[in-house]
Amino acid sequence: MTELDIPSHDGATLETAPTRYVESRTIRFAYRRLGPATGTPLVLLQHFSGNIDAWDPAVVNSLAADRPVIAFDNAGVGRSSGQTPDNVAAMARDAVEFINALGLAEVDLLGFSLGGCVAQQIAAEHGGLVRKLILVATAPRGGEEHLLAVLQDAFSQADVPDPRLPLFFTKSSNSRASGLAFLKRTRVRSDDRDTDNGKAVTDPQAKALITWCATPDPDHEILRAIHQPALVVSGSHDTMLPADNAYAMFKQLRNAQLVLYPDSGHGALFQHHEIFVDHVRTFLDTRSTAA
Amino acid sequence: MTELDIPSHDGATLETAPTRYVESRTIRFAYRRLGPATGTPLVLLQHFSGNIDAWDPAVVNSLAADRPVIAFDNAGVGRSSGQTPDNVAAMARDAVEFINALGLAEVDLLGFSLGGCVAQQIAAEHGGLVRKLILVATAPRGGEEHLLAVLQDAFSQADVPDPRLPLFFTKSSNSRASGLAFLKRTRVRSDDRDTDNGKAVTDPQAKALITWCATPDPDHEILRAIHQPALVVSGSHDTMLPADNAYAMFKQLRNAQLVLYPDSGHGALFQHHEIFVDHVRTFLDTRSTAA
Repeated sequence: MTELDIPSHDGATLETAPTRYVESRTIRFAYRRLGPATGTPLVLLQHFSGNIDAWDPAVVNSLAADRPVIAFDNAGVGRSSGQTPDNVAAMARDAVEFINALGLAEVDLLGFSLGGCVAQQIAAEHGGLVRKLILVATAPRGGEEHLLAVLQDAFSQADVPDPRLPLFFTKSSNSRASGLAFLKRTRVRSDDRDTDNGKAVTDPQAKALITWCATPDPDHEILRAIHQPALVVSGSHDTMLPADNAYAMFKQLRNAQLVLYPDSGHGALFQHHEIFVDHVRTFLDTRSTAA
Repeated sequence: MTELDIPSHDGATLETAPTRYVESRTIRFAYRRLGPATGTPLVLLQHFSGNIDAWDPAVVNSLAADRPVIAFDNAGVGRSSGQTPDNVAAMARDAVEFINALGLAEVDLLGFSLGGCVAQQIAAEHGGLVRKLILVATAPRGGEEHLLAVLQDAFSQADVPDPRLPLFFTKSSNSRASGLAFLKRTRVRSDDRDTDNGKAVTDPQAKALITWCATPDPDHEILRAIHQPALVVSGSHDTMLPADNAYAMFKQLRNAQLVLYPDSGHGALFQHHEIFVDHVRTFLDTRSTAA
């Protein structure tokens, strides 16, 4: 168990917690910290184009009910300093700098989409730092992605209130209703909101994700280097990083659970947030047994 | 909610509950009933060759903590009268006779292996009777099975204490230890144990399972007829009915969650019994939304 050397703000939520800053050797990182002071912290690794306020409060606050949860902006994103790198390996190095700057000796990782690629890289390279990892709507190195086509399609739809509606949810009425509820939840915070840095972030991030998937890894070197227990999660109709990626990761990882949700897209964790939080909690609270 | 017209035995377990009998028009069914008197009953559909006492008390008793759970012998199995049919459709008819004989208007089904085929058939044909279904270590019609090869391999191993060890568990030390613990749990009950009727059960059951998988269903007629929410579960290394079956069912079912467990075989639900019960409970307790 790791104790965070940060004053506890009991009852703070993603919407109310102050944004904090911590300096590594090269970067000043913005972050928010929720939940109890003790326990293995769960560090969240965000998706392409997302900042701290792009997380779903329904997911983050529920996870923080019984463990420390840390959302942060990686280098160049939101209010963190530095440049957004154009490759996953550098993003992983930056994230480890952040974790080290907080003085955390062991963490759990939840990586969503591009953040899931970063989580795989960190877990493969830093066996001792990562206790367990959760890989959501992501792809293995050499996996299948349709980022640009899906982005182009989403941004061509003039009548949607937010591109995340077509990007993260399916066209069913249930999924769409879940999407609108998700968007509403992400807009509750008004003060001290995180910033959107546009193409300075999204251009290198798109290159990083596309390169990750375009890099063949026939021997699954990254996945086979991951010894930590993993929970792999995807939506049935993820158009950006299809669920076949999740099944392929499950088969190559040494010790993985796979959970797939019905009628859901890239944002399955936000659509099925109550079930997702239950599944994450069950996974993180199970005593680990090596495979 | 359905109230069972059966005296409640608070605290009864699979090991201590009396075996009861109920008569349909043609069959006298043996069963045990656990858990509270109210709530949607969960009816368990057993695997090839198994009787009531082949269920894992760790799974059944935990599930019965907050819902009625009913384990029974289908026609010809254990102490139920009648002949074991050689096809899934007839097994489904017999199971529905049993459910009707108990006067239950709506049930949840948990079908394991051959019992999962029976559960699919019932759910497809009796939309109003089945609220939700859990399909564990099973196959769709036209799916992949290796029953005879795996049985032959298991029974050729002279040094195993029970064929279910190689049939249900992997060769890893963790899985094998889980298997020995499972076998021990199934042997606690000494009085009023269920009977093993040998080839009178296993011959027609083997034919039913093999025929089910040998019957092509290119349009997925059974799966597409299932409108109920489904939880599909499998072990990573199921040698009898491989996990590819589960992924295929997930993709064709209208409203399914998929959960796959690491380092586990056909008996994944017994090896990972604590996590499995958590997942079942989360699934059954979630308010259903149509896809």
